[in-house]
Amino acid sequence: MLENTGRTELSSLGEFGLIKHLTQFIQIKNESTIKGIGDDAAVIDYKDKQTVISTDMLVEGVHFDLAYVPLKHLGYKSVSVNLSDIYAMNATPKQITVSLAMSNRFSVEALEELYQGIMMACDKHKVDIVGGDTTTAKSGLVISITAIGEANADELVYRDGAKDGDLLCVTGDLGGAYVGLQLLEREKKIFMESPGVQPDLGGNDYILERQLKPEARKDIPPLLKLLEVKPTAMIDISDGLASEILHICTQSEVGCNLYEDKIPIDPSTYNTAREFNLDPTVCALSGGEDYELLFTIDQSDFPKIKANPNITVIGHMTSRKDGVNLIAKGGTTHPLTAQGWDSILKG
Amino acid sequence: MLENTGRTELSSLGEFGLIKHLTQFIQIKNESTIKGIGDDAAVIDYKDKQTVISTDMLVEGVHFDLAYVPLKHLGYKSVSVNLSDIYAMNATPKQITVSLAMSNRFSVEALEELYQGIMMACDKHKVDIVGGDTTTAKSGLVISITAIGEANADELVYRDGAKDGDLLCVTGDLGGAYVGLQLLEREKKIFMESPGVQPDLGGNDYILERQLKPEARKDIPPLLKLLEVKPTAMIDISDGLASEILHICTQSEVGCNLYEDKIPIDPSTYNTAREFNLDPTVCALSGGEDYELLFTIDQSDFPKIKANPNITVIGHMTSRKDGVNLIAKGGTTHPLTAQGWDSILKG
Repeated sequence: MLENTGRTELSSLGEFGLIKHLTQFIQIKNESTIKGIGDDAAVIDYKDKQTVISTDMLVEGVHFDLAYVPLKHLGYKSVSVNLSDIYAMNATPKQITVSLAMSNRFSVEALEELYQGIMMACDKHKVDIVGGDTTTAKSGLVISITAIGEANADELVYRDGAKDGDLLCVTGDLGGAYVGLQLLEREKKIFMESPGVQPDLGGNDYILERQLKPEARKDIPPLLKLLEVKPTAMIDISDGLASEILHICTQSEVGCNLYEDKIPIDPSTYNTAREFNLDPTVCALSGGEDYELLFTIDQSDFPKIKANPNITVIGHMTSRKDGVNLIAKGGTTHPLTAQGWDSILKG
Repeated sequence: MLENTGRTELSSLGEFGLIKHLTQFIQIKNESTIKGIGDDAAVIDYKDKQTVISTDMLVEGVHFDLAYVPLKHLGYKSVSVNLSDIYAMNATPKQITVSLAMSNRFSVEALEELYQGIMMACDKHKVDIVGGDTTTAKSGLVISITAIGEANADELVYRDGAKDGDLLCVTGDLGGAYVGLQLLEREKKIFMESPGVQPDLGGNDYILERQLKPEARKDIPPLLKLLEVKPTAMIDISDGLASEILHICTQSEVGCNLYEDKIPIDPSTYNTAREFNLDPTVCALSGGEDYELLFTIDQSDFPKIKANPNITVIGHMTSRKDGVNLIAKGGTTHPLTAQGWDSILKG
């Protein structure tokens, strides 16, 4: 990933030079961006709307492995992950700040690739880069992004509004990002052991893309508006379906029945999970990184969403004392826990 | 710094547990903070004001050395550094987000100390912590803070408004943070060579505090308002006086005459610089980390500020073709450059 035809050392540009170099092609897209990069702070004016802020940090060796993640994809994903939080508020992202810490093992060309991915995501979501910080680190790469968005106060959706009887809905399909990661790690292992062997990733484009280049669901807030549905609670799926359901239940003080047979899983996710001797349902429940939206709606809104291919009803909320349960395909009931992958396999 | 009577491993709490543990005592101070920590994003409402955003990243081994920086001070300084940028816009900081990446060499108690410092600074500046991310890293500590503030559109001060003939002003005194750093590095070196020797830091409280616990100039925006002075340009001094003057001159397309004998330097800074065989003026010009505010005002505003002990006039702006110059104590003129410390010493 770090090989390039030319290699420009970071030190040759200096901090100000590097920022200027990386940000030179940034063009402001939003009227609300009064002042972007170049002063002590950015200035934003949403007039009568509310400001929504979210931040995420990605660390090399923890959140990504540059052995198989192209820098351009990494940049794209870093932005997606943050914007997903803004969409999960039913808001519209408008600006981001990007802070990078990296060792001198990275060349200017490598950072350009990273920035290309960042800018591709910003273009797709019509978001302005309005600030950031670029600094050296003794080792590794750390990316910290803060996303800023806007919404009308009455359109915002929090995590704490789900009620007993509400329907639990999810967008897209789940588990793909986790299965994609298994595939990448297997190929990395083979490559480490036999460097001559070419990676066998063919035919798995969908799940690889779910892992490497996740798309934040920009289409969902306007779709919900079009359908005239305001969710009672909403969250994005970064840590896995089980963990996010528990967040909504805890904050809304409700219980939930989740039906295993309703969980949307793509055939390629299902088949690859089986190939790895993994339970596809567990991949969806605990895999994470799908960046789909999980939300609850009032039962009376069901007719508005039932025919929509983007949305699947996977359960319903109950009273708190009934607990949070998975109703398995065989009809048995299991308390849902946010335990990680390992403990599920062992359990 | 990392020794404590008890040591709780980070892994014993988990990510959610750690965030909850560290943020449990956070209380919202600002009416504009609609929703703080606990959802996908924070929600802020400034009504008819503009939003101001700034972000900074601090990396262990680059921006701080835990051999002599107490974690509480580090937390305090991380916040100060960010808020300083908001004050430099003539705005009022209201919220911050805090992202941390750290290796498991840090205990929960160590992070509590860091957070104590962060919260002390937030209390002092009446700022709410509204979000963040806490993650592990393979090594070291990275702190990324984003500060959010508000201002009336007509009160904001940018870097590009200085005019030929404006007076150049600075708050407080300069060079102390850099000289404080020399003192700490000398004592660290002695300690590394002779671990039994106690550090000799006595009598240097002021410059040590300038380095370890800098104060963002929260008092200056309201003071300027009281004095009925709106600067034509403003910036905070993080990289040294010379670099910041050049930023204002470049963005405002003006020149500048800076008078060496006017640069405010505290006697303890002066004496300690001399002890290290350093030129106190060079410490002020290139040392950085003073977090004072540098601004330009119209000449007609001079009577309003001249008696104020917080503000010193150190030069005046000229036309761009006259360049950016230091008028030395002997009357000679030298072009001002933003070169680092080493190159100045060699030059």
